[in-house]
Amino acid sequence: MYDTAIIGSGPAGLSAALNLKLHNKDVIWFGSGELSSKVEKSEKIANYPGPGMIAGTELNRCFKEQMEAMEIQPTDKMVTTVMAGASGYQLLAGNDIYEARTLLLAIGSVSAKGFPGEERLLGRGVSYCATCDGFLYRGKTIAVYCEDRRFEHEVRYLAELAEKVYLSAPYADSGIGLSNVERLSKPIRQVAGEARVSVIVLADQTEINVDGLFCLRGAVAPAALLPDLAMDGAHIIVNRRMETNLPGCYAAGDCTGRPYQIAKAVGEGNVAVHSILEYLS
Amino acid sequence: MYDTAIIGSGPAGLSAALNLKLHNKDVIWFGSGELSSKVEKSEKIANYPGPGMIAGTELNRCFKEQMEAMEIQPTDKMVTTVMAGASGYQLLAGNDIYEARTLLLAIGSVSAKGFPGEERLLGRGVSYCATCDGFLYRGKTIAVYCEDRRFEHEVRYLAELAEKVYLSAPYADSGIGLSNVERLSKPIRQVAGEARVSVIVLADQTEINVDGLFCLRGAVAPAALLPDLAMDGAHIIVNRRMETNLPGCYAAGDCTGRPYQIAKAVGEGNVAVHSILEYLS
Repeated sequence: MYDTAIIGSGPAGLSAALNLKLHNKDVIWFGSGELSSKVEKSEKIANYPGPGMIAGTELNRCFKEQMEAMEIQPTDKMVTTVMAGASGYQLLAGNDIYEARTLLLAIGSVSAKGFPGEERLLGRGVSYCATCDGFLYRGKTIAVYCEDRRFEHEVRYLAELAEKVYLSAPYADSGIGLSNVERLSKPIRQVAGEARVSVIVLADQTEINVDGLFCLRGAVAPAALLPDLAMDGAHIIVNRRMETNLPGCYAAGDCTGRPYQIAKAVGEGNVAVHSILEYLS
Repeated sequence: MYDTAIIGSGPAGLSAALNLKLHNKDVIWFGSGELSSKVEKSEKIANYPGPGMIAGTELNRCFKEQMEAMEIQPTDKMVTTVMAGASGYQLLAGNDIYEARTLLLAIGSVSAKGFPGEERLLGRGVSYCATCDGFLYRGKTIAVYCEDRRFEHEVRYLAELAEKVYLSAPYADSGIGLSNVERLSKPIRQVAGEARVSVIVLADQTEINVDGLFCLRGAVAPAALLPDLAMDGAHIIVNRRMETNLPGCYAAGDCTGRPYQIAKAVGEGNVAVHSILEYLS
């Protein structure tokens, strides 16, 4: 049982991880060892006090150095489901289950709310986890929405099991050259079906019959992770202590709302940890 | 009429000043060109993401460099009174009045709530401003609480006017060698009087008759600055947008409550500016 599970390796997650480490807490931190692609891709950052006018690449490098100096490291696994229990939270990442007394959501702004129909059909043909659910689609036809090239190993895994894979990806340079993977030229606009997924609809209204849809995204929408979490649109509702409506569950950074700023995120990560420390004691 | 007046040059004030500059706002910023003595005096800071493990002196130097690179500079005057008007706020600093549509309080944690009796007798013998009120005490006997050596020029000014000055100061190395200035060996514990100040009481219960008490502190308690400001004990009440109960008045940093952390302060300064920008538009 960990003291805290942090989901997210942007500035809010890093700020929290640094502070929890300083307080000798036992932490499992989910995220990318590359930390924040959003920071990394910022051309110039002038309004984060300390480093001066700095390129995002450079600031992200500073973040990584500080992380390494503090001997902390995120676990590069994607949490797909969180269950609240009596003594804390259970997190499913791949096929592994992790338990923590407190949970910090630092999952960034999830730009997409998912496809129409996605939330309703989650667990009924819609899945976020190839490792968990892939075996259910052996010999079947599936669609896969792969948000980032770095999830293509999951597409390959699914292609080993499924008869046919329709791949939708927002990037150009796909490295998948498998005969049973067909890349869609139009984006997915909807997933539909009565009791279960039966069809995806593309932007040009083409309908394709499928048995399932895998959505492989960098972040899972909070409502999909934790259905009971109180939301205001796409944002998690928190108070000034960064408490959500769920006991022992905190949120920080872009996922709690605008402004989407590094300074706000590191501040909220810090505040969340102080609330977590109080909760744990 | 300025767009915004910022009071305070710690991390919250700096964060706000940087952001307002980036948005080309017309700002008057009250504080010290040395920025934060609290940051300056921190031995080591490990939990502020970006600069790595860093000495406070060094981080404050980074802050100053960024401030200079952005061509912003605080005005080294102390705001002693703020008045809310129809179109914004009027700030009194020394003998000058400044007007701004919005106000950001980034005044730090005011450790002292003032002496017992101080708030009640403010304007009735208690003053925070030597330049403003000194002339009222020509030929009289006054006490001066001087929190920091850098305010001693005000004590000298008062000693030119008053017949006798009782000086209370929490530091050892006073540079005042004037015959009519007597340094008190015990700290002030109370200021008293019916309609006006008539006496100060020291820690050893000694009573000294005085006509007035000047309190020269680095920060003025929020309630003394703006009596209508909603407080929770020593802290200014704000919501997640850093709005106080007064329209166009925002607060950020230690003055809004714990944790007293650089990351929290820069985050709140940033958030406050985004709310201010919305208000101004």
